[in-house]
Amino acid sequence: MTDPSDLARRVREGELRLHELDDHADPETAATARRLFVEGETDTDLDTVGEYAFDAATAEPNIENMIGGTQVPVGVVGPVEIDGGAVDGERYLPLATTEGALIASVNRGCSAIRAAGGATARVLKNGMTRAPVFTVEDVGEAATVAAWVRENTDALAAAAESTTSHGELTDVTPYVVGDSVFLRFTYDTKDAMGMNMATIATEEACGVVEAETPASLVALSGNLCTDKKPAAINAVEGRGRTVAADVFIPHDLVEERFKTTADAIAEANTRKNLVGSAKAGSLGFNAHAANTVAAAFLALGQDIAQVVEGSNAITTVEEREDGLYASLTIASLEVGTVGGGTGLATQAEALEVVGVTGGGDPAGSNADALAEVIATAALAGELSLLAALASRHLSSAHEELGR
Amino acid sequence: MTDPSDLARRVREGELRLHELDDHADPETAATARRLFVEGETDTDLDTVGEYAFDAATAEPNIENMIGGTQVPVGVVGPVEIDGGAVDGERYLPLATTEGALIASVNRGCSAIRAAGGATARVLKNGMTRAPVFTVEDVGEAATVAAWVRENTDALAAAAESTTSHGELTDVTPYVVGDSVFLRFTYDTKDAMGMNMATIATEEACGVVEAETPASLVALSGNLCTDKKPAAINAVEGRGRTVAADVFIPHDLVEERFKTTADAIAEANTRKNLVGSAKAGSLGFNAHAANTVAAAFLALGQDIAQVVEGSNAITTVEEREDGLYASLTIASLEVGTVGGGTGLATQAEALEVVGVTGGGDPAGSNADALAEVIATAALAGELSLLAALASRHLSSAHEELGR
Amino acid sequence: MTDPSDLARRVREGELRLHELDDHADPETAATARRLFVEGETDTDLDTVGEYAFDAATAEPNIENMIGGTQVPVGVVGPVEIDGGAVDGERYLPLATTEGALIASVNRGCSAIRAAGGATARVLKNGMTRAPVFTVEDVGEAATVAAWVRENTDALAAAAESTTSHGELTDVTPYVVGDSVFLRFTYDTKDAMGMNMATIATEEACGVVEAETPASLVALSGNLCTDKKPAAINAVEGRGRTVAADVFIPHDLVEERFKTTADAIAEANTRKNLVGSAKAGSLGFNAHAANTVAAAFLALGQDIAQVVEGSNAITTVEEREDGLYASLTIASLEVGTVGGGTGLATQAEALEVVGVTGGGDPAGSNADALAEVIATAALAGELSLLAALASRHLSSAHEELGR
Amino acid sequence: MTDPSDLARRVREGELRLHELDDHADPETAATARRLFVEGETDTDLDTVGEYAFDAATAEPNIENMIGGTQVPVGVVGPVEIDGGAVDGERYLPLATTEGALIASVNRGCSAIRAAGGATARVLKNGMTRAPVFTVEDVGEAATVAAWVRENTDALAAAAESTTSHGELTDVTPYVVGDSVFLRFTYDTKDAMGMNMATIATEEACGVVEAETPASLVALSGNLCTDKKPAAINAVEGRGRTVAADVFIPHDLVEERFKTTADAIAEANTRKNLVGSAKAGSLGFNAHAANTVAAAFLALGQDIAQVVEGSNAITTVEEREDGLYASLTIASLEVGTVGGGTGLATQAEALEVVGVTGGGDPAGSNADALAEVIATAALAGELSLLAALASRHLSSAHEELGR
Repeated sequence: MTDPSDLARRVREGELRLHELDDHADPETAATARRLFVEGETDTDLDTVGEYAFDAATAEPNIENMIGGTQVPVGVVGPVEIDGGAVDGERYLPLATTEGALIASVNRGCSAIRAAGGATARVLKNGMTRAPVFTVEDVGEAATVAAWVRENTDALAAAAESTTSHGELTDVTPYVVGDSVFLRFTYDTKDAMGMNMATIATEEACGVVEAETPASLVALSGNLCTDKKPAAINAVEGRGRTVAADVFIPHDLVEERFKTTADAIAEANTRKNLVGSAKAGSLGFNAHAANTVAAAFLALGQDIAQVVEGSNAITTVEEREDGLYASLTIASLEVGTVGGGTGLATQAEALEVVGVTGGGDPAGSNADALAEVIATAALAGELSLLAALASRHLSSAHEELGR
Repeated sequence: MTDPSDLARRVREGELRLHELDDHADPETAATARRLFVEGETDTDLDTVGEYAFDAATAEPNIENMIGGTQVPVGVVGPVEIDGGAVDGERYLPLATTEGALIASVNRGCSAIRAAGGATARVLKNGMTRAPVFTVEDVGEAATVAAWVRENTDALAAAAESTTSHGELTDVTPYVVGDSVFLRFTYDTKDAMGMNMATIATEEACGVVEAETPASLVALSGNLCTDKKPAAINAVEGRGRTVAADVFIPHDLVEERFKTTADAIAEANTRKNLVGSAKAGSLGFNAHAANTVAAAFLALGQDIAQVVEGSNAITTVEEREDGLYASLTIASLEVGTVGGGTGLATQAEALEVVGVTGGGDPAGSNADALAEVIATAALAGELSLLAALASRHLSSAHEELGR
Repeated sequence: MTDPSDLARRVREGELRLHELDDHADPETAATARRLFVEGETDTDLDTVGEYAFDAATAEPNIENMIGGTQVPVGVVGPVEIDGGAVDGERYLPLATTEGALIASVNRGCSAIRAAGGATARVLKNGMTRAPVFTVEDVGEAATVAAWVRENTDALAAAAESTTSHGELTDVTPYVVGDSVFLRFTYDTKDAMGMNMATIATEEACGVVEAETPASLVALSGNLCTDKKPAAINAVEGRGRTVAADVFIPHDLVEERFKTTADAIAEANTRKNLVGSAKAGSLGFNAHAANTVAAAFLALGQDIAQVVEGSNAITTVEEREDGLYASLTIASLEVGTVGGGTGLATQAEALEVVGVTGGGDPAGSNADALAEVIATAALAGELSLLAALASRHLSSAHEELGR
Repeated sequence: MTDPSDLARRVREGELRLHELDDHADPETAATARRLFVEGETDTDLDTVGEYAFDAATAEPNIENMIGGTQVPVGVVGPVEIDGGAVDGERYLPLATTEGALIASVNRGCSAIRAAGGATARVLKNGMTRAPVFTVEDVGEAATVAAWVRENTDALAAAAESTTSHGELTDVTPYVVGDSVFLRFTYDTKDAMGMNMATIATEEACGVVEAETPASLVALSGNLCTDKKPAAINAVEGRGRTVAADVFIPHDLVEERFKTTADAIAEANTRKNLVGSAKAGSLGFNAHAANTVAAAFLALGQDIAQVVEGSNAITTVEEREDGLYASLTIASLEVGTVGGGTGLATQAEALEVVGVTGGGDPAGSNADALAEVIATAALAGELSLLAALASRHLSSAHEELGR
């Protein structure tokens, strides 16, 4: 019974539920049936949603109740030149976005960086975290559990690592609030973004904690991870990759490319990204790093909800004697080149453009490289937007003088 | 000269630059040429990226250097029943994601909400902001400028509103830090997300400030807006829509649907979303609201970089005598049903599914409705994940008891 | 029965409780009795604690279970010259502290400011807040209550102001989180710090809210006030006085007084107070404003627990062509010249030194003046410490060069 | 020439500067001379300020430009019963304050805790920090320096510990932002609060960093310490002592002592201290911990500007089957029993009352004990205020029912 219309009818008549269609048809037919059903219920036409080019079967690990594909235009920036820890040379970067002018802006920055001899980039820290919360009797017991954890990291590592062939437990830090004990587990998950790996490994380790201490698990995530929420713990200590990129651009090049001065860009950065963000109570001290991060995440099969952490970034600009120094440091960029959405058709093609397909050699180097490329592109975007803000100011100042 | 191969060759040979292709061919041919060029430079195959189903010409306002389309699987949740301020009744919601289990999880929550008689939802506040930064001589002058602004909101409104047929300036609040003066302009941008409208209107108003006061514009955005950065000012005062959804679920339904108890869900919420987030120095006191927000934003043509602000959300759960009360309040959900990516093919179809195509009647009601639907779905996701965390705990507790 | 030894014995024997001594003796005798009792219980000698110079009776509104006085050395800085909104000319400021070098440091800054022609200072905003939390049925009711409050500020003002002869209700802002409704009441409390005035007035207004809406009061303070906790809402919106002070110091004076350069001080400020604070997830972007605020608060009878809010301060330093510009903006300095500890003997004398005894003319001007003096002294402290940090760097650099 | 009037005259005539008086007279005479001078300049009378009971000579390390003493009434709370890691049994605690009702409120809580069998308290973490900021050429060099530091902690410890007989360097963590490298040094400073010890030791270690790496010191404190500013890094990772106290109080005792119920206190805590603080963007999730911390710091010779960090505290309350569980966890309580103001006369007497005079045995145990006592008293204050808020609500609810 694989006629989609018939399946849609059966859902409509209450015989089947939407998610049960997968049991009665291949993924593509099931998606068609759902589309028909939803079209009927909402009196809409989902033709373009149905014209997806990927294989529905390959998307199964990524979606339920699939009705088709969302299509977002994707462009390209680059080449950007990077002297990185994991990447060396020129790279193109696909960006998927619906924000007009974003790609043009990032590309202008990339071009200036290239003209200046390239950016420097480094992954400074690497660790995916998961932090379960336990309950104990009182703060005395909490102190005991915390001490036990500090002394038994090896046992926890053995349990955690029994669940994964790649991941390594690198740290477990206990945090106590009254009768709640949070354990922040940190893993090197190599080329995977690693959220699932970290969760499964941590669940196993929690079993050990519960067996060996009086602590009782309340939730496998206690929000000190912190996943997909803006949190100082990530901005301070990092999550995924802590990555920085910077560039030095001589004065003449600044003026040629950006139609403004190093001094004006530095002032805009100080008043907007440092002082303004300070006054706003912000964890993000940048102009629009999230734009580049989001567009790259979407094009490259990353988890776009993690743009939240990717916006924990600080931009600095200083006028040096011979030119402008600018840097962008992203505290918690969660990226991977295996798993998640990286196997989807258009995403896999985009990862190939960046040159970071699958696992790296050594393990982790592809994800490192991806982090360095994104950080550099985001730096380009920072420079370009700051310059635009600064030059608009200058031009309006010029107009005023002309009056 | 519209043979894409030839165009690609000319780029390769340095005759043309990538972005100049738009001047030499229609958008589709230009995209093909770029794809060919990038394939050649990076030794890759971008076939699926090229199989996009939207009209390249319609995507022009959204992208530069287009090489094709990124395709993300989209599924559907619902119907969810909402007693809202702008929406009343049942709605389906398309979600585009690569995170397996997300849709199943949100859908489980939607189903429980529906069984409980539906959620209540309200837009509590509405205002898109833009906050330029000016420089003045000293704090004396800063005080003078701030006072002038407070007394001349009408003049600023006249200037700002001269640039838009729909937007209304509803507030201008000055913030001073030394010789920097930030003016936070707030607009009712109706059914548009409104960032561009707010920027253009504010630029015009800045002209008045510069003409009438000694303040000199440094940057049109001074980060007190705050756009695409996690900032307390948005979490406290809101940006876009401040929207809340809640539901009451009787005890038997909680247990039937979630295989756990109201008490266990409430405890997980308190220790994880409240105490854990507190300890993490977080602005987000929720489990994974960003997941639902991101997936809805992607499917519905919203700006996915604004997931950052969408994660400023607080989940509360309390056990009442007869059942469980749960709420989700998102402080700064920036949504629109016109402009941005809402006109793209698959996105427009998805908006129709929700029933919020184009401008609402009254103006703003479609964006309000969209905010209420997303908040309700995100609430469903919160309930479902909290229940999963709590029941896993219970089940492991049960296993232990069985030992 | 006013022999202190006898009273102490009766406490020891369980006949009387410590706090009941006030009913059996004059304040001084009661204090002596308590001292004797505590000395006996803890085998200590509280002679100096007993040698207080104020009248125990006058301290009654400030203390319970009094055993004597804590004595802290107090010094003086100044004169500092201020061109303020409420103060004009030279002022001395007593500071009580146990931190060696603090007064010397602040005084060095004051001296430099005076040599530079004085500081400019302004109170930019003024409002004491109290924010009760109510509970409602659901978010629909929350929206209704919030709307009612916005439309009935007059009724709330009438109720609130019926309890005070001086205070004025200037704003009520509703904030909703699920079924909790917070109302942030803001008052102009003139020369009083105003916490008590605001609390009493708000309690009266809460009665109106409960009578006219379905909201039910949970707690008279719901922490959106926010009192004595570091909170972004205060750093962004202010509490008490938002006050700023700044100064311009010519290059030669910078070098003469501070043995370093404007450039070096600016760099120290940017890397430490802006970038460092950003990375620390701080609400305070300054070097040690809390030191000056704390010492002034202690000497002048202010509430020292409110040093917490007084540390919400941003220091900016920029090298201008002819010299150094530095500013300090304190978002939430809670000060008063009447009430609280201002009537105690040494504190009243210290307030007289500043020239801000009792209520000002016009009302509020004395508290404004006090805020401006403290901000200027704190600016002096910022300059002096930044210069010390910068010059130590220079000197070590010099030593290195000499090697 | 030690007639104070004459000295005052010489200052007035410009012959001497205020701070030079120490070179011309004993401390007491110098103070008198300054007092006379200030009285003359400001036309005031500083009689009571002059009636201090401590020896001016002993205060010399704590003050400059001394004019006398500030006197604050001090009371006592207790005994509070504590089962702690460093303290066991009953303790009295002197509190100096000008806030009426504070001591009564804390004492009511202490009494309830004692009736409930006492509180449990533990120091969970201990470390005083200092974080200098260095500049490097670019992020590549930053990565190199950070790696060097991670591998050379021993060398840094050797240098740092060469300056102190008690302190131990326990950790150095590098944080990079662009071309700024922050090194957060953590010390076990035993019974000293340790700020000075940490600063001196870190300065020595900085010499090693500068000698062995290309990093150049910009400022000995780079604000990642973080001292006297409200910062998430302290709230998350702690500074000084991380200390927690909790108590379980049976239902009947809750009702007898607090005239309200466990349920009402828990609700007030959730809506105010958790949800309200969340909405306020706060780092403090408590009712008024700063009040107790400030009053204890003042009475006991601690640094009152560090009340800022002492307010990084989370209060939790839960209704358990048989009663109420409440806890207070202070992340960064900076206390010492040697150094600072602990040697001043009234402060030393107060420390004796607590039973924590001078260095502990083992070293650090006195400061630990002090932290546990303060945390317990602050917990008492939390309980008492929450109960007052909750019962006021109940009583008003009762009145309404009576209508």
